[in-house]
Amino acid sequence: MFKELINKLRLKELIAFSFLFSFALPVFAGEATVTSNKLAIDTIWVLLAAFLVFFMQAGFAMVETGFTRAKNAANILTKNLMDFSIGSIFYWMIGFGIMFGTTTLGLFGSDNFFLSGATLATPEGAWQYAYWVFQMVFAATAATIVSGAMAERTKFTSYLIYTGFITAFLYPVAGHWIWGGGWLEKLGIIDFAGSTVVHSVGGWAALAGAILLGPRLGKYNKDGSSNAIPGHNIPLAALGVIILWFGWYGFNAGSALSGTDLSLAAIVTTTKLAAAAGSILAMVTVWIKYGKPDTSMILNGALAGLVSITAGCANVSPLSAIIIGGFGGIVVVYAVEFIDKVLKIDDPVGAISVHGVCGAWGTLAVGLFAQESYGGVNGLFFGGGLSQLWAQLIGVVAVFAWIFAGSFLLFYLIKKTVGLRVSDQEQLKGLDVGEHGMEAYAGFQIFTTE
Amino acid sequence: MFKELINKLRLKELIAFSFLFSFALPVFAGEATVTSNKLAIDTIWVLLAAFLVFFMQAGFAMVETGFTRAKNAANILTKNLMDFSIGSIFYWMIGFGIMFGTTTLGLFGSDNFFLSGATLATPEGAWQYAYWVFQMVFAATAATIVSGAMAERTKFTSYLIYTGFITAFLYPVAGHWIWGGGWLEKLGIIDFAGSTVVHSVGGWAALAGAILLGPRLGKYNKDGSSNAIPGHNIPLAALGVIILWFGWYGFNAGSALSGTDLSLAAIVTTTKLAAAAGSILAMVTVWIKYGKPDTSMILNGALAGLVSITAGCANVSPLSAIIIGGFGGIVVVYAVEFIDKVLKIDDPVGAISVHGVCGAWGTLAVGLFAQESYGGVNGLFFGGGLSQLWAQLIGVVAVFAWIFAGSFLLFYLIKKTVGLRVSDQEQLKGLDVGEHGMEAYAGFQIFTTE
Amino acid sequence: MFKELINKLRLKELIAFSFLFSFALPVFAGEATVTSNKLAIDTIWVLLAAFLVFFMQAGFAMVETGFTRAKNAANILTKNLMDFSIGSIFYWMIGFGIMFGTTTLGLFGSDNFFLSGATLATPEGAWQYAYWVFQMVFAATAATIVSGAMAERTKFTSYLIYTGFITAFLYPVAGHWIWGGGWLEKLGIIDFAGSTVVHSVGGWAALAGAILLGPRLGKYNKDGSSNAIPGHNIPLAALGVIILWFGWYGFNAGSALSGTDLSLAAIVTTTKLAAAAGSILAMVTVWIKYGKPDTSMILNGALAGLVSITAGCANVSPLSAIIIGGFGGIVVVYAVEFIDKVLKIDDPVGAISVHGVCGAWGTLAVGLFAQESYGGVNGLFFGGGLSQLWAQLIGVVAVFAWIFAGSFLLFYLIKKTVGLRVSDQEQLKGLDVGEHGMEAYAGFQIFTTE
Repeated sequence: MFKELINKLRLKELIAFSFLFSFALPVFAGEATVTSNKLAIDTIWVLLAAFLVFFMQAGFAMVETGFTRAKNAANILTKNLMDFSIGSIFYWMIGFGIMFGTTTLGLFGSDNFFLSGATLATPEGAWQYAYWVFQMVFAATAATIVSGAMAERTKFTSYLIYTGFITAFLYPVAGHWIWGGGWLEKLGIIDFAGSTVVHSVGGWAALAGAILLGPRLGKYNKDGSSNAIPGHNIPLAALGVIILWFGWYGFNAGSALSGTDLSLAAIVTTTKLAAAAGSILAMVTVWIKYGKPDTSMILNGALAGLVSITAGCANVSPLSAIIIGGFGGIVVVYAVEFIDKVLKIDDPVGAISVHGVCGAWGTLAVGLFAQESYGGVNGLFFGGGLSQLWAQLIGVVAVFAWIFAGSFLLFYLIKKTVGLRVSDQEQLKGLDVGEHGMEAYAGFQIFTTE
Repeated sequence: MFKELINKLRLKELIAFSFLFSFALPVFAGEATVTSNKLAIDTIWVLLAAFLVFFMQAGFAMVETGFTRAKNAANILTKNLMDFSIGSIFYWMIGFGIMFGTTTLGLFGSDNFFLSGATLATPEGAWQYAYWVFQMVFAATAATIVSGAMAERTKFTSYLIYTGFITAFLYPVAGHWIWGGGWLEKLGIIDFAGSTVVHSVGGWAALAGAILLGPRLGKYNKDGSSNAIPGHNIPLAALGVIILWFGWYGFNAGSALSGTDLSLAAIVTTTKLAAAAGSILAMVTVWIKYGKPDTSMILNGALAGLVSITAGCANVSPLSAIIIGGFGGIVVVYAVEFIDKVLKIDDPVGAISVHGVCGAWGTLAVGLFAQESYGGVNGLFFGGGLSQLWAQLIGVVAVFAWIFAGSFLLFYLIKKTVGLRVSDQEQLKGLDVGEHGMEAYAGFQIFTTE
Repeated sequence: MFKELINKLRLKELIAFSFLFSFALPVFAGEATVTSNKLAIDTIWVLLAAFLVFFMQAGFAMVETGFTRAKNAANILTKNLMDFSIGSIFYWMIGFGIMFGTTTLGLFGSDNFFLSGATLATPEGAWQYAYWVFQMVFAATAATIVSGAMAERTKFTSYLIYTGFITAFLYPVAGHWIWGGGWLEKLGIIDFAGSTVVHSVGGWAALAGAILLGPRLGKYNKDGSSNAIPGHNIPLAALGVIILWFGWYGFNAGSALSGTDLSLAAIVTTTKLAAAAGSILAMVTVWIKYGKPDTSMILNGALAGLVSITAGCANVSPLSAIIIGGFGGIVVVYAVEFIDKVLKIDDPVGAISVHGVCGAWGTLAVGLFAQESYGGVNGLFFGGGLSQLWAQLIGVVAVFAWIFAGSFLLFYLIKKTVGLRVSDQEQLKGLDVGEHGMEAYAGFQIFTTE
């Protein structure tokens, strides 16, 4: 019978039949197959990338701690740990469903709460766990960006409340628009790893928070001029930046959501070159502008390069990545000065400039530098016209509006109820003693500034 | 001839034959196959997980250093480095064979010393290297846990001796019982990644050591009340906790010992949620109990959650993980207080509570929360009756008895020969100068407490 | 027709035909295949290894910062960040082509600049990105080694110039000789992961730099005796060493350039054991020699073990790895003393000894300890005669000559033009203030030594 069957088959059918043999049969036997191997490669890549993105929490913690004063170090570290913890739970309960559940009018998802779609009974169900693990660390990244701009004066309780809302609602809605099948995705926006979805979201929320919170005591003089308040531990800040850079490889290349994608190494290449260019151009800019290559600004320049390339890391050439990241390094120097001296908003670590402003720049840059041979789309500079740039611009503006307004309202409500700001006395003494009843550096002789 | 053969085959035989074609033949040709790819995926996953677990050494080093005083920092760091180094050599020579060699009465293994079963001539032999690499970092984890509880007063030499014995004998025997084909494994105990095998082993050895060693000078007053001795570098401790959390993904998900296991991402999910819940519940507990959210306790809460979920990470649901980890976070607060104030045992970093007590809790929790749809077994709360809980309890008690008694004897012998404790004068001056002839923070003005 | 075809096939042809079915056909369909899975495994392994090697930058930064004085910390961190950034760009533009481009007389490559061979259109082109990512972090490692030996007295500008030249020319030429198809590779030299290519290159360049630069103020007394200048942050240095050890797994096992190589885990095994032996033997040596187990030397011992095994990690047995690494740990103690007290060259972190001397030892050791059952070649101790040792020796000498001479010339030219050394006044005050206009530890009370 089988012989007859084979005799009747034509080439095309035989190929299909051969396919069945190579793939499907071993599955029934519980054996490894090409398909099960591919799923495994995709899963371990996404998991390992997620671990790297998780480790960025250490990077943020070290950068924010290093760039602020010793008397507030334990507070900052606790905030950083807790925003990840609270974010994990809330994103599991609510955020993931809002971001990736079935869309309601392209605005938000409305099922898959409590990770209800995940199951070990099927490969697709098992993949849901991997997908959640990866997306969860992104949500926590957006949340933790905020703490830097609000450092050294925010009530611990208020921060905890805020962090629940951003991971449950604010971030997931913006994420749904761009990554979850929402209206911006349908518009064709490209934000591969989240210059806008993650970084600008964090940066614009930080902006709203810093405005409502007001500056640290001693930051501005009566004549409106600004005082520099130096960070207390540059080695930790530098370690933090290298950790962030390290984690960013997972952030960007993991966003392919597959370990078998041919473009993974190209993504790493653009990421690395943009970061390098960002730190070099920030160094040059600050050297020319202020006479010396300030370490803090060089560190922020590397981050600026990384944020800038995040949207387009899979869509641009290495040379374009150098231009995008390098321009980010220049932008961040001017943005920090503008926010500090013109807008007079006190952002101790430069989070608004690095994540908000460079996130917007990076998103727009895709509309300029995208090249078909990388991600299938051409931007303005490569003959693609204005359409992609237009989609990018709408995304930048829409997410700014949603996040700034939403965060502003949220912080405003917190301010009017629990209160946002610690007392001046506590601020002078330090939040470590005030909020946590401890010191970060017991035994060290430390001069408390202001 | 071949044609006739094919004509005679029935479907079943043809499938088997097809199998031979897809897998075996390319092997002869030295080509990649589904099987060789699977082995590669398993190998790189286990290696990468092992690297992450190795990196936990940095986590332990930073946590223990940060939570103790500046004058003993170099000593702690040196102990942490050396326990890994000595552990590597001893576990290669002896420990691995005792843990995974052919069993003698279910009590200990008795061959495969010096990694004699490993060879590059066969895939199975090559896998032995990967397996050793992974198991070795687990042995070192158990060893390094001890140093935290014995910090700031132990002779360096004594610690080196101890660490050789735990990695060569004490840990491998317990490991053989549960993972190496020993009597507890036959009893059906589930300790997926080692709440008991690794963490309780470390914790109970730490208990024995801390008892025999006695408290640090100035820890207890004449009336028996306890003084807090604050750690000198909370940023390092916080960094250490995030590094540990990061490494724990490898610890738990690597314990699947395969990169093609469908449950990897579910394991990461339970691990992450338990850690989050542990830190949140520890925060709430300490906040209610002492009035402020103490940073050190929150950090220990995250570790408590991680230790608690280690046994059951592949057997429980995300919700159960939150309960298990969260309860661990509560337990650790009370355990630290009980050990410090009631038992009057001086454990500078809380290692006994975090690793010993929460390790026991996590192991028992599998008997309560296990669910068939995750790891194939139901615990008490999911209709599985008491049998699994019973196996878990026997394991917890047996390992406690073996490790506590064995460590106690070992430390007792060291105490009576080499001596366990440095002189009071050295303790006051600091072990960095006394044991290593150096300072950890040359140039910094530091007040030496007590 | 197909039936007739099949009937005519003989076994051998049918196998070939079956191959076509299993591999080639799915490629046309854009499906996963055994081949595409293998490429994916190789790619993600090499990328992840490259991430780990990148993270070694944090290790170097922490080690160098910790082992020097607080007043120069920001300068060292900035140098470390910038050598990676500048190295990325220069290695992309020039270095990669010189190292791996088509060879000119076995001396240097002369095409593939600006990564021109990489493209996403073919698997081979995509692999070029991965290869560049991996090689680039190696170039940066060689560059960053230099900064340790030149710490605390080098002009920032001069360092930037130097770093461009080493990543664009000096390192790539040596790399071409050994890894890029050059004359030493043809001679049969084995330097699997770069004891010579990376570490000795860094070490000998550091030697040239330190000679031309002269010692730090206060390092040598008038009678020629040497003063120890203690490092200011041993916890950071220890963290750095663990990070380096962690990254070294990627450095060595990634150098297989394949995730499907059966020997990956054996490479990790030799790496780990050599590092362990290095730290143990350095401890024993320094303990006997100076009376106390100095932490700094133990840390350098671990690095010495790692550098020593780098050349032979895939060619020697675990036992040989212990001997090679352990001997490296002894060597480094004597080398540090010899360079400091006899040669009177001021190398603040011991970079010349760790990377230069142990790199040479490790390269030679392959000629002694190589075993056919690991990497296919036998060294002197395993019946292979002197030929391999001879090739290794020529490589060590040739690379020393090229790098020492080239670096000496380069540093000499920089010295005569831009100047190498900061003013004595700036050195006393610290390079953080002098070069970057900032302090690393604002608020801490720090005694400035010298």
